[in-house]
Amino acid sequence: MSHMPKFVQLNEEGPREGFQIEKGPIPTERKVELIDALSETGLSQIQVVSFVNPARVPGMADAGEVVQRFKRKPGIRYTGLWLNSKGLERALATGVLDIKGSLSLTASAKFLARNQQRSMEENVAAQHDLIRLYKQHNVPIERASIMAAFGCNFEGDIPHERVLGLIRTIFDLAEEHGLTIKLVSLADTMAWATPLSIKRLVGAAREKYPELRLALHLHDTRGLGCANAYAGLEMGVDEFDSTVAGLGGCPFAAHKGAAGNVCTEDLVFMLQEMGIETGVNLERLIEVAQLAEDIVGHPLPGSVKMGGSLKPLRAAAMH
Amino acid sequence: MSHMPKFVQLNEEGPREGFQIEKGPIPTERKVELIDALSETGLSQIQVVSFVNPARVPGMADAGEVVQRFKRKPGIRYTGLWLNSKGLERALATGVLDIKGSLSLTASAKFLARNQQRSMEENVAAQHDLIRLYKQHNVPIERASIMAAFGCNFEGDIPHERVLGLIRTIFDLAEEHGLTIKLVSLADTMAWATPLSIKRLVGAAREKYPELRLALHLHDTRGLGCANAYAGLEMGVDEFDSTVAGLGGCPFAAHKGAAGNVCTEDLVFMLQEMGIETGVNLERLIEVAQLAEDIVGHPLPGSVKMGGSLKPLRAAAMH
Repeated sequence: MSHMPKFVQLNEEGPREGFQIEKGPIPTERKVELIDALSETGLSQIQVVSFVNPARVPGMADAGEVVQRFKRKPGIRYTGLWLNSKGLERALATGVLDIKGSLSLTASAKFLARNQQRSMEENVAAQHDLIRLYKQHNVPIERASIMAAFGCNFEGDIPHERVLGLIRTIFDLAEEHGLTIKLVSLADTMAWATPLSIKRLVGAAREKYPELRLALHLHDTRGLGCANAYAGLEMGVDEFDSTVAGLGGCPFAAHKGAAGNVCTEDLVFMLQEMGIETGVNLERLIEVAQLAEDIVGHPLPGSVKMGGSLKPLRAAAMH
Repeated sequence: MSHMPKFVQLNEEGPREGFQIEKGPIPTERKVELIDALSETGLSQIQVVSFVNPARVPGMADAGEVVQRFKRKPGIRYTGLWLNSKGLERALATGVLDIKGSLSLTASAKFLARNQQRSMEENVAAQHDLIRLYKQHNVPIERASIMAAFGCNFEGDIPHERVLGLIRTIFDLAEEHGLTIKLVSLADTMAWATPLSIKRLVGAAREKYPELRLALHLHDTRGLGCANAYAGLEMGVDEFDSTVAGLGGCPFAAHKGAAGNVCTEDLVFMLQEMGIETGVNLERLIEVAQLAEDIVGHPLPGSVKMGGSLKPLRAAAMH
């Protein structure tokens, strides 16, 4: 408990995850409505869209329009996602997003082959190209992520040593290009992590690279999202990705309320009740989670939007 | 991590919680089907019914019949719940249940007044009567529970000192009647606990009463069921109540998949993946969770029954 952070940075990815995965179609104005509502909750970073092939991800065909229409609130970093130079150029062309570069390695060779048709070596080579592209556009690069860091549906368990080796690879890449990577996000892409594996991997990474800041990208597919986040907190992790109402979900079972990404308001509830600041107004966020459910038109997995916060109960108990 | 238990005892309460709260009506034969399926999962304790007023809990009107019809598997303790002498007598009359007495105090005076129309003092007096009743029927008493130990919807936060005082009261009660209470179950009846409050209260209780075994009864209403269980594990807690598929749920929002009790298969998944034995076959338990969903006719909150275990993925990854 001694290492628990006092403040946690939450990176809201609900709009991007949700609009990407939901069958919809969701009207552009409702996407804008969700983003604008999130802007009033105190969240400091919101990923609003992805710039991907609209033929493959129809829910993102209106990404450019969404970006032009939502109301930018000062102090919030609005981000986007891209997978290639074309996507990056579209993101840059919007002129309104906070464009930061990030390196991305994957701990599973099989997952990498299936999803990006690359070998581990080819993926490292691709990062060199990516760095050159970012530099060409004057995009700063201070972060990296490692996908499938805790296990892979196609390859099975991932040895922690491999992940530590990939962090070394990231540092080598950075050094070669005169960059400084300050944060590495460990992604439990396919929900294989447990509190114990979180503690072990984060602990090993922290021991080997004490100066490196670590973030966690967690999924709740097997019900351990908050438990894994708690284990991360106990190891001093102070940055998490999450989605309001658990948007994103499991595409194969979204209607059943199957959980995908760890849910922002559940995380905020846990943090707030443990005295950890997030800057987020939980009551407002719960309302936005309910709005998200209304927008997608089916139940979403988060619990606190149904269970409620303790604030009104505490207030009533005073009387 | 050093205090994590090697084996965890799970007390399955799904049938009792589920049949009690579900609108149904659920045919008796389907209740029996669920209990018989649970008997094949390796669970060692299953609470099958409650002996309550059928006018108030119509789902338990067939409790006596359920008890006569399910197939008792050797080695499993089948238990029931009762709230008064009439209920206990019905439970005893079945002749097939494992009848053990338990003392029950409540940490919230307001909750106690609302639910049992008793003051704290009257509730202690009622425990004396209960002990006499148990003794009269030769029912052993080695356990006690404290409801609302982490917070109360009507009274707000519950000071840890009050819970420690109630443990003292339990010991005093036991001493007066020549009993030895070996285990106290701390119940987060209204889902107010966080991993931090679990650690603090369990830690304080353990420090003050080092010989006492502690169990946790957790609810997942605000998404922290597994996180709270993990915090308990880290404090050495090795016994939990839980319900298959999260049966029980929130009566006000069951159709939305709102979580009530912490879900057995999610807990077993977490424990198994962390190398902690439960004696439970997770794959079979997942099938029973799916059966439970079929029986109640609407989605239930558990995650692993949708997300799946890692066993088939690991097996496939070997090829």
